[in-house]
Amino acid sequence: MKAALIGGTGYGSIELVRFINQHPYLEVGTVVSNSQAGVGFSEIYPHLSNIVDQPLETFNADRLAEENEIVFLATPSGVSSRLVPPLLDRGIKCIDLSGDFRLRSADEYESWYKHSPADEKYLKQATYGLSEIYPEKIKTSSLIANPGCYSTASILGLLPILKTNLAEYESIVIDAKSGVSGSGRGLSLTNHFAEINENLKAYKLGAHQHIPEIEQILSDESGGPIKISFTTHLVPMNRGIMCSIYVKLKETVTTNEVHQIYSEFYKINPFIRIRPEGNVPSTKEVLGSNYCDIGLHVDQRTNRLTIISVIDNLVKGAAGQAIQNVNLQNGWDERTGLIDIPLYP
Amino acid sequence: MKAALIGGTGYGSIELVRFINQHPYLEVGTVVSNSQAGVGFSEIYPHLSNIVDQPLETFNADRLAEENEIVFLATPSGVSSRLVPPLLDRGIKCIDLSGDFRLRSADEYESWYKHSPADEKYLKQATYGLSEIYPEKIKTSSLIANPGCYSTASILGLLPILKTNLAEYESIVIDAKSGVSGSGRGLSLTNHFAEINENLKAYKLGAHQHIPEIEQILSDESGGPIKISFTTHLVPMNRGIMCSIYVKLKETVTTNEVHQIYSEFYKINPFIRIRPEGNVPSTKEVLGSNYCDIGLHVDQRTNRLTIISVIDNLVKGAAGQAIQNVNLQNGWDERTGLIDIPLYP
Amino acid sequence: MKAALIGGTGYGSIELVRFINQHPYLEVGTVVSNSQAGVGFSEIYPHLSNIVDQPLETFNADRLAEENEIVFLATPSGVSSRLVPPLLDRGIKCIDLSGDFRLRSADEYESWYKHSPADEKYLKQATYGLSEIYPEKIKTSSLIANPGCYSTASILGLLPILKTNLAEYESIVIDAKSGVSGSGRGLSLTNHFAEINENLKAYKLGAHQHIPEIEQILSDESGGPIKISFTTHLVPMNRGIMCSIYVKLKETVTTNEVHQIYSEFYKINPFIRIRPEGNVPSTKEVLGSNYCDIGLHVDQRTNRLTIISVIDNLVKGAAGQAIQNVNLQNGWDERTGLIDIPLYP
Amino acid sequence: MKAALIGGTGYGSIELVRFINQHPYLEVGTVVSNSQAGVGFSEIYPHLSNIVDQPLETFNADRLAEENEIVFLATPSGVSSRLVPPLLDRGIKCIDLSGDFRLRSADEYESWYKHSPADEKYLKQATYGLSEIYPEKIKTSSLIANPGCYSTASILGLLPILKTNLAEYESIVIDAKSGVSGSGRGLSLTNHFAEINENLKAYKLGAHQHIPEIEQILSDESGGPIKISFTTHLVPMNRGIMCSIYVKLKETVTTNEVHQIYSEFYKINPFIRIRPEGNVPSTKEVLGSNYCDIGLHVDQRTNRLTIISVIDNLVKGAAGQAIQNVNLQNGWDERTGLIDIPLYP
Repeated sequence: MKAALIGGTGYGSIELVRFINQHPYLEVGTVVSNSQAGVGFSEIYPHLSNIVDQPLETFNADRLAEENEIVFLATPSGVSSRLVPPLLDRGIKCIDLSGDFRLRSADEYESWYKHSPADEKYLKQATYGLSEIYPEKIKTSSLIANPGCYSTASILGLLPILKTNLAEYESIVIDAKSGVSGSGRGLSLTNHFAEINENLKAYKLGAHQHIPEIEQILSDESGGPIKISFTTHLVPMNRGIMCSIYVKLKETVTTNEVHQIYSEFYKINPFIRIRPEGNVPSTKEVLGSNYCDIGLHVDQRTNRLTIISVIDNLVKGAAGQAIQNVNLQNGWDERTGLIDIPLYP
Repeated sequence: MKAALIGGTGYGSIELVRFINQHPYLEVGTVVSNSQAGVGFSEIYPHLSNIVDQPLETFNADRLAEENEIVFLATPSGVSSRLVPPLLDRGIKCIDLSGDFRLRSADEYESWYKHSPADEKYLKQATYGLSEIYPEKIKTSSLIANPGCYSTASILGLLPILKTNLAEYESIVIDAKSGVSGSGRGLSLTNHFAEINENLKAYKLGAHQHIPEIEQILSDESGGPIKISFTTHLVPMNRGIMCSIYVKLKETVTTNEVHQIYSEFYKINPFIRIRPEGNVPSTKEVLGSNYCDIGLHVDQRTNRLTIISVIDNLVKGAAGQAIQNVNLQNGWDERTGLIDIPLYP
Repeated sequence: MKAALIGGTGYGSIELVRFINQHPYLEVGTVVSNSQAGVGFSEIYPHLSNIVDQPLETFNADRLAEENEIVFLATPSGVSSRLVPPLLDRGIKCIDLSGDFRLRSADEYESWYKHSPADEKYLKQATYGLSEIYPEKIKTSSLIANPGCYSTASILGLLPILKTNLAEYESIVIDAKSGVSGSGRGLSLTNHFAEINENLKAYKLGAHQHIPEIEQILSDESGGPIKISFTTHLVPMNRGIMCSIYVKLKETVTTNEVHQIYSEFYKINPFIRIRPEGNVPSTKEVLGSNYCDIGLHVDQRTNRLTIISVIDNLVKGAAGQAIQNVNLQNGWDERTGLIDIPLYP
Repeated sequence: MKAALIGGTGYGSIELVRFINQHPYLEVGTVVSNSQAGVGFSEIYPHLSNIVDQPLETFNADRLAEENEIVFLATPSGVSSRLVPPLLDRGIKCIDLSGDFRLRSADEYESWYKHSPADEKYLKQATYGLSEIYPEKIKTSSLIANPGCYSTASILGLLPILKTNLAEYESIVIDAKSGVSGSGRGLSLTNHFAEINENLKAYKLGAHQHIPEIEQILSDESGGPIKISFTTHLVPMNRGIMCSIYVKLKETVTTNEVHQIYSEFYKINPFIRIRPEGNVPSTKEVLGSNYCDIGLHVDQRTNRLTIISVIDNLVKGAAGQAIQNVNLQNGWDERTGLIDIPLYP
C-alpha cells in the first residue's frame, strides 16, 4: 500500500519514512514539499542516502489520489485544513499529524491557533486518533486527527484515574517537558544550539495549543468539564516528552491500588507499560519506540497522586501513533512495523 | 581573612574557591580532604593549575582554628554534624553547606536523612542562611546552615505570595528540575554520562530531603502549617535549577498585581530579579551567577499562579549564597566578590 | 537459531538484543551475567520491560552449548580469552566483541592490553570479522574476532587508498573522536556526566589498544609495514565515531578521482556509503544503523587526502557488525535484521 | 575609560560586556547595533537585566569618538573594513575581532573571505593581536586585528616547536574542534539544536578562512613558507576549542625535552599553562577563562609530536584576548579584569 507524505521535509515526516520502511504492508509513495520540489530527498537528509533518494514533488491532489492509497500530512497548523478536503473528496484516506482537525469547535481552534479553522463539514468527519482510547472509531474513519505529542502523554497518563471517582477534577496540574525536536526544523532563536543547550526554558505559560485538545478529551471521557493548568518546558535533548501530572485524591488510596487501576485499564494495550511501584520511567527508556511508559506515586502526606508519563514525541507523539492508527484502520496487528526496542543508551 | 574548606574536592568546594579568589577580603586557607590528603589541589582539578596548587590536608580542629577565621563545610550529610561542634568550640565561624543544621527538629532530620542528627545544643545555634529573608539573624550567628539548592529556589519563589492572603496553602505543587552537578562528584549509574545524557528522569518522588526544610520555612513565614507536593527531575545539563511552582489563588488577581507584590517584596535585594510580565527566566540566564530570577503568570482560566524560579544550583544554591552570608556576617556589601555577570551562552 | 549473550549487562549486549529482536532467524537465548545472575534483564534495563524480561544466568559452558547455537561475547578484555575455548570445544560458534582474539601476536596483545593473551591454539582459529574485507573467511570460521569500533572506521576509511600506489605510508594520521558510550557502562570519573558534558577530552595519546589492530590489517592489506599516529577523543554525546584521516599523496589527484577509487572499491557493499564530492558525513547520519559513511577531500595546497569516516560505535563498531558476520556465516543476506534507517534527528 | 561595542548583539560582544564589567579601568560605553537600535540591551539578553539595560544605538562615528576612548568591533567579516577607517581618522583606538585586518595581503583576504578587502592604507596600520607573541607592537598600535579563535589555539600550540629546528614544516596537520558558539548567533540549519546535538560534524575541509592567517604567522615566525592541513569540526557543546596538532620530528626527542622547550618559551606568560608530561588538557578546564592550556606527547613509534591546545573560543579566542590587548596597550597588568578561574564543572 503506497503512502504519500505531505510536509516531507519535517522531522515527523522522516520518522514516518523510517517506520514505513520497516513496515511489511506499506511503501513510501509520493513525497510532497512545495518549497523544495525537484530536490532529492537524500540531498536534504543525507542519512537517507541509498534508501530513499526520490525527488520531492509539488502538491497535486489528482496525482496523489491516483498513485497512493493513503496520505500522511505532517504540515504546520493551518495547512492541512486546506489540503485534506480535496484529498478526502478523491476518496483517499488522510492521517493528519497537525492540530487542524483535533478540536470539534471551530471557534476554539481559531482562538488557540490564530488561524482560520477547517470547514465544519470536514471537521465532523475527523476522528481523534488516540489509538488506545478510540480503536473502534479509528477503524471506520477516513480522516484521522493524530493527537498532539503533549496531549498523548497527558491523556494516557490521566484517563485511568479520571475514570474512577477518586480524582478532584479542578486540581489537575500538568508540568510538561519536551526535547527540542518537538518544535520542528524551522529556524528560530529558541532552537539555536547555543541558546538552548545547557539551558532549561519554560514557554507558552497557560497558552499552549494542546490545552483545549487535552481538555476536550478529558471532559468527554470523565463527564465533567475539566480545566487543567498546563506548563511546557524545553529540555536540552533531541527527543522525549515527560508529563509530570499532579492530581488531588478524594479518598485515601495506596500507590498499589492506583497501580492496579492503571494495569487493568491498559491490560490489552501492548504499547502502554505501567511501571511497578517504586519505578519511574525516564524518557530515554522509550526513545525511538512507540511505547508510553507510566509511573505512579501517591504522596500520603498530601494525598496527591503523581503520574509520570513518558513518550518519544516523534513516535508515540507523532509518526508511530500515525502508523498504529493505519494498522487499526486496516485490521492489521497494531504493532506492525512498530516493534523497535527503544534505542538505549 | 583566611577561609578553610572542608570537603575540598566536591563541586561546592571548587565554586567556593572561584568566589574566594575574586573576593577582596577573603583568601583560600586550609583545604581539607581526608581521602586525598597530600595530593595537590590542581592535580585533582587541573583547571586550578597555577591558581590553587596547595596540597589537601586532613581534618585537624586545632590547626584549622589557628590558621583560619572561617570554615566552609561542603561535606555529604551526616559529616558536618560531627565536625562543626569542635570548630564552634574553638571560636571559629562555620558555614555549613550540607543539610545537617537546617532542620530544627532532630527527629525530622533522622526520618528524612536516615542519619543521626546533630547535637541539639549546636542545632539551636544554627541560623538558616537564606540571605534575603534572614539577614539580621545571619549577621549575629556563628553557625550558618546554608539552604539547599531546591529550597532556595522554591522558598524565594513562594514567600511573596504566601505573605499575602491570596494563596490556598494546601494547593502548592513544586515541580523541580536540576542539572546533574547537583548530585555531586560521587560516581553512580544515575550520573553516568550515557545514562543521563539525552534523558530526563524524575527521582525521589515525594521523598526528597529538601521537603521538610522548605515546609519548615514556609510554615514559619506564613503562619499556617504548609505541606507541599514536591517532585525532582534530573535534566541533561551541568548546572541550573528551575522550580515551576503552582498555587491556587483565593481571589481573582492579575499577573500585573502579582508582579507588583513580588517587586515590592524584593525591592532591596540585588540578587533577586523579578521578570516583567510575559517574560520567563531560563536557567542559563543566571549561569555562574548568584541571581535568582523569577517569572510570574496567573492563568485566568484556572485561577492558578505559576511561578518560575531559577538559580544556578552551585552558586545561589550553594557557594554563592555562602559567600553572600559571610558578607552579611561581616558587614560587607552583600555583593562583594559576587558581581559576575551570568556566563552566556 | 538461539543466540546466547555473555556480558549481558553492557551496552554492546543490549544493542545485540535490539538487533536479534528484529532478526527473522535469530532469537535471544541464554543471557549471562555472573555479577547479576538471577535478576531480571528488564530490572536492569527498564526499556526492555515486556520485551526481554528473562533472568540473567551464570556462565555454564555445557548449558550454553546445549541451549544455544551461537554465542556473542561482549565482555571486557581478558575475559573471553578464557571463556571462548570451552565453548569452541563444545562445538558452538563464537562471536567475540572484545579485543582478545583480534591480534595474531600474543606478545603484542600482552604489551598493549596488559593482560595474558589467549591460547595460541585458539588465536589461530580466529578470523578478523571486518565484514566487507573478509567475507569469505568469515563464512567458514567458528570464531569471529569482531573488530574494534575505532578500527572499523579507520580501516574502512583507509583501505581503498592504500590499495593504490598513491599513499605515502609513513604519513598517516588518524584523529579519532568517539561518543561516550564507547567506554561502556562501568563507572569512572571520566564518564561522570558533569565531567564530560560540555567538555572535549583527548585521551590515551599514542597508546590506544586499537592501534596494533589497525596496523595489523593495514599492513596485511597494503603489503608494507604501516605505522600510524592515532589519537582518540571523547565527545559529549552518547554514540558515534568519526575518524578524520590524513594521508599524503605521492601524485596529484583530484577529489573526484579518489571518489571513483572508493566507489569502485565498495560497489558491492550495502553498508558503505561513499558521499559525493563536497559532502561530508556527520555521525548522526548513521545513528543506530550499520552504515559506514565516508567523505573525501583532496587538499590541492598540501596534496594531502582527508578522509572522514563515520559509524555508530555500538552498531557497525560492535553489535551490528557482529550480526552482519553471523549473516555471512549462515549464508543469509548480510542485511538481514539490519535494515534500520538511521534515527534522525 | 569608556569602551564602545559595535556588533553589540553577538556572543563576542556580550563576553566583552562581562569582562568590561569586572575590569577596574574600563566601562561599557556606546553599544551599537544597527538592526536593533532603540531596544534595551537586556531585552535582547535577559541575563543582563539590572546590569546593562541601556538602549542599543546606531553607528555614528562622530558620536562614538566623542563619547568613547576605545571601540571593540565584533562584527561579521566585511563590516569593520568599512567602519574602522572613520573611527581611526577620529583618533579613537580600534580592536577588531573580525578577520578584516588580519591578513597583510588584500588579495589573499579576497580569495578566502569572498569580500572586498580593507583599504591598504588601514591594513598597514593593523597589528596582529596575539598577545603573547606581539606584546611590543600591540603597545603602540591603534588598530589591533584580534586573532581568530582557531588561529590562537593553533599558533600558540605550534610556535615553540617551530622555533627550534626539530619540526618538518610540510608535515603539519591541525585537526581542530570547536563548540557551536563559535559560529555565532545567526540562524542556520547547522546551528539548529536538533541537528547538531548528539552529532559531530566536519566542515569547510581545507577551506576555513583561518588557514591563511595561521600560515602567515607561522611563516613569519619560522622563516620558511608553511602550509598546513587544517580541518574544522563542530562539537555538540557551547564553548571550547581543541586543536590536535601533529608534527613530524626531524630528530628523536623525548616528551620531556619538548615539555622544557614549551615551558621555557612561555615562562613569562600568565595565561599559557603547559601541562606536565602525561597530562592533557580538556576544553572545560579553561571554560570562561583566558587560559590557553597545552599538552604534549611524542610518539616514539612514529617520531611525531602531538600537541593538544585548548582555549575558550569566546575568551582567549575573542573577547578575553581583546581585553588582554587593551591592557597591553595601556600599560596595565595584562591580567587586569581577566582573573576568572575557569567555571567547573
